[in-house]
Amino acid sequence: MAYTSHGRREKMTYGGIKLYAGTSTPLFSQKIADYLHLSLNETDIVEFPNENLFVKLHSSVRGQDCYVIQTTSPPVHRNLMEMLILVQTLRLDSASRITTVIPYLCYARSDKKDQPRVPITARLVADLIQAAGADRYITMDLHAGQIQGFFSIPGDVLSAFSIQLEYLKNLKPGMQDPVVVTADLGFAKKGRNYAAALDVPMAFIEKRRAGNDSKARALNLIGSVQGRDVILVDDEVDTGGSIVEAVNLIKQNGAQDVYVTFVHASLSSNAAECLGALPVKQYITTDTIPISKEKEAFMAGRLKILTITKLIGEVIRRANEGRSVGEMFNE
Amino acid sequence: MAYTSHGRREKMTYGGIKLYAGTSTPLFSQKIADYLHLSLNETDIVEFPNENLFVKLHSSVRGQDCYVIQTTSPPVHRNLMEMLILVQTLRLDSASRITTVIPYLCYARSDKKDQPRVPITARLVADLIQAAGADRYITMDLHAGQIQGFFSIPGDVLSAFSIQLEYLKNLKPGMQDPVVVTADLGFAKKGRNYAAALDVPMAFIEKRRAGNDSKARALNLIGSVQGRDVILVDDEVDTGGSIVEAVNLIKQNGAQDVYVTFVHASLSSNAAECLGALPVKQYITTDTIPISKEKEAFMAGRLKILTITKLIGEVIRRANEGRSVGEMFNE
Amino acid sequence: MAYTSHGRREKMTYGGIKLYAGTSTPLFSQKIADYLHLSLNETDIVEFPNENLFVKLHSSVRGQDCYVIQTTSPPVHRNLMEMLILVQTLRLDSASRITTVIPYLCYARSDKKDQPRVPITARLVADLIQAAGADRYITMDLHAGQIQGFFSIPGDVLSAFSIQLEYLKNLKPGMQDPVVVTADLGFAKKGRNYAAALDVPMAFIEKRRAGNDSKARALNLIGSVQGRDVILVDDEVDTGGSIVEAVNLIKQNGAQDVYVTFVHASLSSNAAECLGALPVKQYITTDTIPISKEKEAFMAGRLKILTITKLIGEVIRRANEGRSVGEMFNE
Amino acid sequence: MAYTSHGRREKMTYGGIKLYAGTSTPLFSQKIADYLHLSLNETDIVEFPNENLFVKLHSSVRGQDCYVIQTTSPPVHRNLMEMLILVQTLRLDSASRITTVIPYLCYARSDKKDQPRVPITARLVADLIQAAGADRYITMDLHAGQIQGFFSIPGDVLSAFSIQLEYLKNLKPGMQDPVVVTADLGFAKKGRNYAAALDVPMAFIEKRRAGNDSKARALNLIGSVQGRDVILVDDEVDTGGSIVEAVNLIKQNGAQDVYVTFVHASLSSNAAECLGALPVKQYITTDTIPISKEKEAFMAGRLKILTITKLIGEVIRRANEGRSVGEMFNE
Amino acid sequence: MAYTSHGRREKMTYGGIKLYAGTSTPLFSQKIADYLHLSLNETDIVEFPNENLFVKLHSSVRGQDCYVIQTTSPPVHRNLMEMLILVQTLRLDSASRITTVIPYLCYARSDKKDQPRVPITARLVADLIQAAGADRYITMDLHAGQIQGFFSIPGDVLSAFSIQLEYLKNLKPGMQDPVVVTADLGFAKKGRNYAAALDVPMAFIEKRRAGNDSKARALNLIGSVQGRDVILVDDEVDTGGSIVEAVNLIKQNGAQDVYVTFVHASLSSNAAECLGALPVKQYITTDTIPISKEKEAFMAGRLKILTITKLIGEVIRRANEGRSVGEMFNE
Amino acid sequence: MAYTSHGRREKMTYGGIKLYAGTSTPLFSQKIADYLHLSLNETDIVEFPNENLFVKLHSSVRGQDCYVIQTTSPPVHRNLMEMLILVQTLRLDSASRITTVIPYLCYARSDKKDQPRVPITARLVADLIQAAGADRYITMDLHAGQIQGFFSIPGDVLSAFSIQLEYLKNLKPGMQDPVVVTADLGFAKKGRNYAAALDVPMAFIEKRRAGNDSKARALNLIGSVQGRDVILVDDEVDTGGSIVEAVNLIKQNGAQDVYVTFVHASLSSNAAECLGALPVKQYITTDTIPISKEKEAFMAGRLKILTITKLIGEVIRRANEGRSVGEMFNE
Repeated sequence: MAYTSHGRREKMTYGGIKLYAGTSTPLFSQKIADYLHLSLNETDIVEFPNENLFVKLHSSVRGQDCYVIQTTSPPVHRNLMEMLILVQTLRLDSASRITTVIPYLCYARSDKKDQPRVPITARLVADLIQAAGADRYITMDLHAGQIQGFFSIPGDVLSAFSIQLEYLKNLKPGMQDPVVVTADLGFAKKGRNYAAALDVPMAFIEKRRAGNDSKARALNLIGSVQGRDVILVDDEVDTGGSIVEAVNLIKQNGAQDVYVTFVHASLSSNAAECLGALPVKQYITTDTIPISKEKEAFMAGRLKILTITKLIGEVIRRANEGRSVGEMFNE
Repeated sequence: MAYTSHGRREKMTYGGIKLYAGTSTPLFSQKIADYLHLSLNETDIVEFPNENLFVKLHSSVRGQDCYVIQTTSPPVHRNLMEMLILVQTLRLDSASRITTVIPYLCYARSDKKDQPRVPITARLVADLIQAAGADRYITMDLHAGQIQGFFSIPGDVLSAFSIQLEYLKNLKPGMQDPVVVTADLGFAKKGRNYAAALDVPMAFIEKRRAGNDSKARALNLIGSVQGRDVILVDDEVDTGGSIVEAVNLIKQNGAQDVYVTFVHASLSSNAAECLGALPVKQYITTDTIPISKEKEAFMAGRLKILTITKLIGEVIRRANEGRSVGEMFNE
Repeated sequence: MAYTSHGRREKMTYGGIKLYAGTSTPLFSQKIADYLHLSLNETDIVEFPNENLFVKLHSSVRGQDCYVIQTTSPPVHRNLMEMLILVQTLRLDSASRITTVIPYLCYARSDKKDQPRVPITARLVADLIQAAGADRYITMDLHAGQIQGFFSIPGDVLSAFSIQLEYLKNLKPGMQDPVVVTADLGFAKKGRNYAAALDVPMAFIEKRRAGNDSKARALNLIGSVQGRDVILVDDEVDTGGSIVEAVNLIKQNGAQDVYVTFVHASLSSNAAECLGALPVKQYITTDTIPISKEKEAFMAGRLKILTITKLIGEVIRRANEGRSVGEMFNE
Repeated sequence: MAYTSHGRREKMTYGGIKLYAGTSTPLFSQKIADYLHLSLNETDIVEFPNENLFVKLHSSVRGQDCYVIQTTSPPVHRNLMEMLILVQTLRLDSASRITTVIPYLCYARSDKKDQPRVPITARLVADLIQAAGADRYITMDLHAGQIQGFFSIPGDVLSAFSIQLEYLKNLKPGMQDPVVVTADLGFAKKGRNYAAALDVPMAFIEKRRAGNDSKARALNLIGSVQGRDVILVDDEVDTGGSIVEAVNLIKQNGAQDVYVTFVHASLSSNAAECLGALPVKQYITTDTIPISKEKEAFMAGRLKILTITKLIGEVIRRANEGRSVGEMFNE
Repeated sequence: MAYTSHGRREKMTYGGIKLYAGTSTPLFSQKIADYLHLSLNETDIVEFPNENLFVKLHSSVRGQDCYVIQTTSPPVHRNLMEMLILVQTLRLDSASRITTVIPYLCYARSDKKDQPRVPITARLVADLIQAAGADRYITMDLHAGQIQGFFSIPGDVLSAFSIQLEYLKNLKPGMQDPVVVTADLGFAKKGRNYAAALDVPMAFIEKRRAGNDSKARALNLIGSVQGRDVILVDDEVDTGGSIVEAVNLIKQNGAQDVYVTFVHASLSSNAAECLGALPVKQYITTDTIPISKEKEAFMAGRLKILTITKLIGEVIRRANEGRSVGEMFNE
Repeated sequence: MAYTSHGRREKMTYGGIKLYAGTSTPLFSQKIADYLHLSLNETDIVEFPNENLFVKLHSSVRGQDCYVIQTTSPPVHRNLMEMLILVQTLRLDSASRITTVIPYLCYARSDKKDQPRVPITARLVADLIQAAGADRYITMDLHAGQIQGFFSIPGDVLSAFSIQLEYLKNLKPGMQDPVVVTADLGFAKKGRNYAAALDVPMAFIEKRRAGNDSKARALNLIGSVQGRDVILVDDEVDTGGSIVEAVNLIKQNGAQDVYVTFVHASLSSNAAECLGALPVKQYITTDTIPISKEKEAFMAGRLKILTITKLIGEVIRRANEGRSVGEMFNE
């Protein structure tokens, strides 16, 4: 008595995809919807004069597979809370599955107690997302891969690595003896992945406190950049301070052109202005955080923003259909 | 063999009181500390340029009974997150018990689904507080008493009722046939408590939508205020819109002097200015939310802020010592 | 590469509807089944001589969408436990989803700590339902809407409001200047909804303790009923004491005909007899609680029981099919 | 640098003992209080006309070690719910530790799925106790020791074995070649413990269904009772049916005097009358369930009720003081 | 408006069956796959030199119904951990449902605290399985049926009883006045089921400690085996010590042929050799634990291993399709 | 009315310290006990022939502060399970607080999903520890600091850094222009801490795959070691393969003496033999994992084992007394 009815393609269905965009990054959300040939689902998201937020879904999500797209760049806490409220609203309306899509996860750098009596806020954020009722999450290039272990729910932690790499490979023929440099030793191992994939050597910038002054720091370049083009790699640029120091040190050590690549363009304070003033040939980043036209202007055409919306759109599609995400990267 | 060693006074000790003030309401926190003859414990609370917050406690809280004092008025979400981070930090540092003291709890008005596809954000806030690791909470005059049931942890929900009442009783001899009026039918039952305690009659303002216009509203006064002084009672004043409407209606109905009493002075938008322009003899409120000097100025000496810090200080003391709180109110 | 396969109508399926009736209200359950053109599923529900209950399902519920219909009127605790046991039995038999359908939720009036050292039993009931393993719940006209926030699971809290309203609208042409009166200030806001929907004025009955005697109460009518027909509205009638007081007061104030409408007909003690003796033209209620023929007889044809079984049946259908419930009410 | 301050006797204190008696077994509770030289703490426990229960503690339990004493004999579900409400009330009032003391745990015989589609109600009861917020439990002679594993919280599962044994050892010199017999094979192993401790042989009664009739049963006596006094042992007597059958079979097999010993005297239906009519010399049981004077009368002086209140009182004392309970039994 | 679309056969689908075999019992797993006409899904399961295990699934399991087949015989702890890791891996890869299939559950004999200060390790094992993320479990003949109540998740606890019974019924015509004997009083009730189903009498072996020596034990045979063939029944044979004692006692009491039947062939230490040396005509067991060829050799053709793989395969099929398992046994 | 009774020194007490040693590392546990002037508490830890473990505590732990000391080196899974069983046993015996002390935490390298369809086993281990019932944990030098965020319970993650540093500072005067080298880029940032504290430069070894062969790797030394003594730093040495490669590369690059320092001496396979054969002047490690005399012999006097038992003993003391641990390190 054979049992042939269950083929490899049969999957549990969580219902149709419903896309919900928070207010943090509407264009980004629209691009995902476009990729999926879907519309963003309509909601009222109101901020009352006392700053309390109110959400109302325009149609029922019973038995449907819902995705809340919200990045957690500034206004960080409002964006975070808006996402949590959206998740709870969907849960109370009996969605069958709720996935938070967070291209940039706030507080990811607060991921360990490297001194006593401090929080691990990234874990708190994971706890809050779960407390609101999310079933899964999708995010990009966490500051540390271990943060995935802070979640009790499954998720897809994606990387812009392959997108950035493809772009850099195209630039490489025009570069002169390129070398990959990491601005932060915590990024050394990931930096190695860029160097290995581009088949170029690498160098490191090492920082340590100088003397008794808690703020003064000494920077050393370990490895050589003399006469070479440099690809400076990092995961996030916030105030830009590390990049400024790094580029100056690299230039002092005789580098030719400098390219800077990073995933998350926080660009807080006057970071964009600082970066604009640096002798950098090109900045290569992504759209995990919306970059204002004003900030973009400082970079004067030297800023290349690679979109990750197709990547996320495809992952949503595969998550919904029960197909492999790893396969997208031949893994 | 008798068993006399355990007397009635023996209590579990959670260690000494440690008071932690968030940045929302430092003077308020200091007054609580003063009442308890304690100092606020020192912390670094830093906001990075990317808005992410960082907390560091200056000394260990192992085995101690910690209280995080933070109101959740604007900036609402930052204040809420700061409180959650403080709670997690204390928990990770092995505090024996953590109580959040939240004089004004944000989102308390989002306490039920009175239409489909909306959140119950007050429940979400309760869930977040628990997810961060609080063991107990202390708060004041929740919009609805039922919100206490949203928490899985025990707590003390206090009321400024007796403080306000004492004040009103002193005013009463100078009033002319006073009557209590509620601006919102949802506050009718609590309004009755004021009327009963002051031994005066009451009247109600009833609002309903007028015609097809979703914004137009018709107001009716049910009961009489003719020739009487009016005590208008409510729990919170946000934009002041309801108060403006109510005072005008009361005046149109022949009231003499009008007193307005409420617990939570949100006073968002231009509420303070609106209230200042009304023919109200006195506003009686509390310090659950800090009121700026600028806002106070609009009320030109007609604003009476009753402090609840002694009440909260005493409750913290009793919670720590394992003594009855209800007893404070002869309950 | 388009992505058109996921239309709006695709929903997660929880399997076919399986209806399980507890012993509290078999006719009510059968009417729901009739509405859905289904049979109630068979079970053995046995009470052993020591009062312990035993349940056995006659057929497997693996992968099916199960509904346990049980009201929690007297015998309250037996009915509650029977419901919990049914839920656990379904869960252990691997039902895909379990919804408790509780037309009348016991302990809903114990919804807040309005004095120290008392329980919030409605929250306990919610906790017990979840501990047994229910995934969702459906209930009717909770004493306070906030009770929905006591549940961590999603649910549908329905209202007989529209059913009652339709009935009252038909009566209205025969009424003389009708006015809506609430017997309890806690119901003032909901009472306003009746008045607004019927486009009639309203009045309130205010109770307060009289003097030092803890039992004596003074009742005041605020607003006018003189020469008018009165629609007295409340959510539940238990001993009928409040209704008796209210009707007498209304009559003393010169009302003409009195109609009394309420959702939950608890009618404990000799309530039915008391109501029967009142000068009330009609009682309008629902079948959330079964009313014995004997009790009905006291009302001598003046009791109108509106059925909510079609409403619940339709909600079950929509919950199962993943369709909007709010839509039923044009919300 | 020595570390001598922590001696072996230092224990965490949960505060003073507070005893709360449910309404199921007031005399039993009072005896425990007497043993501990304490008073039962005062409460209002009110049943409203609609059967809903209400509890109010007369004084605060903050930081105290509370014990709720309630047996769950009939009215089973009311008693169970009353216990759960008491636990929640203590928890919401910030008791430091709550222990439920349940001399007879209802539903203990529903402890496994020995057929498909049935509940494991004993596990449900454990879940409910935990959902209400109990930290520990104390109970007596569970139907199966494994039920202790149904609880996630720690507890003390006590046995009346040593109390019964002491009594039987005193009787033994007056018995003629005694033999222990178990009425139920599920009690065979525990029966062996009685036989071994009394140093007497044992026999078993084996029941099996007879033919196709689902109710007819065949009983066999395995082992010999001819000319001997019999000690028939069981854990609980409910309707008494098994005892009647067993005593008759034993007598048919030539036994002399018959003694029947069991822990839990459920004695439902007409069990007391049936037992009274049997040729049994003595019934030996305990006070885990209150036995009415009327039932006792049927046994006409042949019923010996051994009290377990001192045992429970001593366990409460030791639990409070952090002393070994096992030590009481030289374990 | 009829509602006929939901027939009885509609079920929730958890996706297609995916079978994952741990390394403990590959042939057994393959037989299950064969029964289902499926392949075992491929994985890398690697043990690093430091004994840490690593798992990698070869293909995605998103939205699929996964079964991890692993018995927990020696190496017990490695097998248990391997199973837990497989479960977590499947969960993190977003399987829709994960069932652990554990033919022999380790630590099942540690199921109660029969003395103070000992663990209930079977409950711990249940907790670990749930902590890893299993949604359901399938296991065989638990030492005590109550262990099913240790799990919060639903499961199928199957029995080899009917398979063994069918085999014994075929042997019965060749036996001489057979009698069922249990080696352990804890198995008395289950032993009765064999006797009843075979319609033969039964006898019991009772063990008790002899004198003050904690190791010496006295064995008594209660009931008669004189001149009869004996079917000795037990659930598990570990060191074989009980069987050796039992067979010797039975033989001393005049039994003819002895058959020994048990479900779980742990056969640790030199059990196989001991059993091989006994005057037993046949050993009847199952393949819940793999038996080495070497051990089998000791039994020299007298060991009959009945396979349970078809039973488990069929249960997996029915679990996946949402069909009754009880029905397989006419229950 | 002042409130001066609560000074800074008042702490919650969890009772006296009770130390329980698993069987993994008895000498290590004894040293901790010695430091604290306490005895290890007695237990029976038995392994049955079927490998199942059994634990019995010799005395009660009610109301006491218990520490289970167990490292999770091989036999890894047995050691882990023994620890979990000890924790559950203490919990069921009503310990007031249970802390697991795990000098070496197994599976710490499985801390992220760096490829699809793999586990995060370190998170699983954290979940298991919590499922067993631990309240806190103490461990040493986790592979990644983020693993602390895998735990929901608080803990102390200690470091041997200061102990190793003190030792290295004493060696430094005898070294020739020392340089710190990291064998793994993932350790680069921690390696920097050694270099900065010793005030010496650093260099890095970078590994990448060579060509298409998945096993072949190319190693590059970045930075200079020519003519210098090298301090090679890492967190754990397992098979020793990375160290062998690193030392060879360093020597090829002209280094003088080589010192190797690491915290966790896993030394599996023939690691000790390999290390013994290398031209290394000294190996500096700790006793987080017991090192056999046989392994030690391979290093022929070149192995320095620094003990961390005093550090852990002091942390236990401070945790028990509610004193700061950070203070020990002037943090």
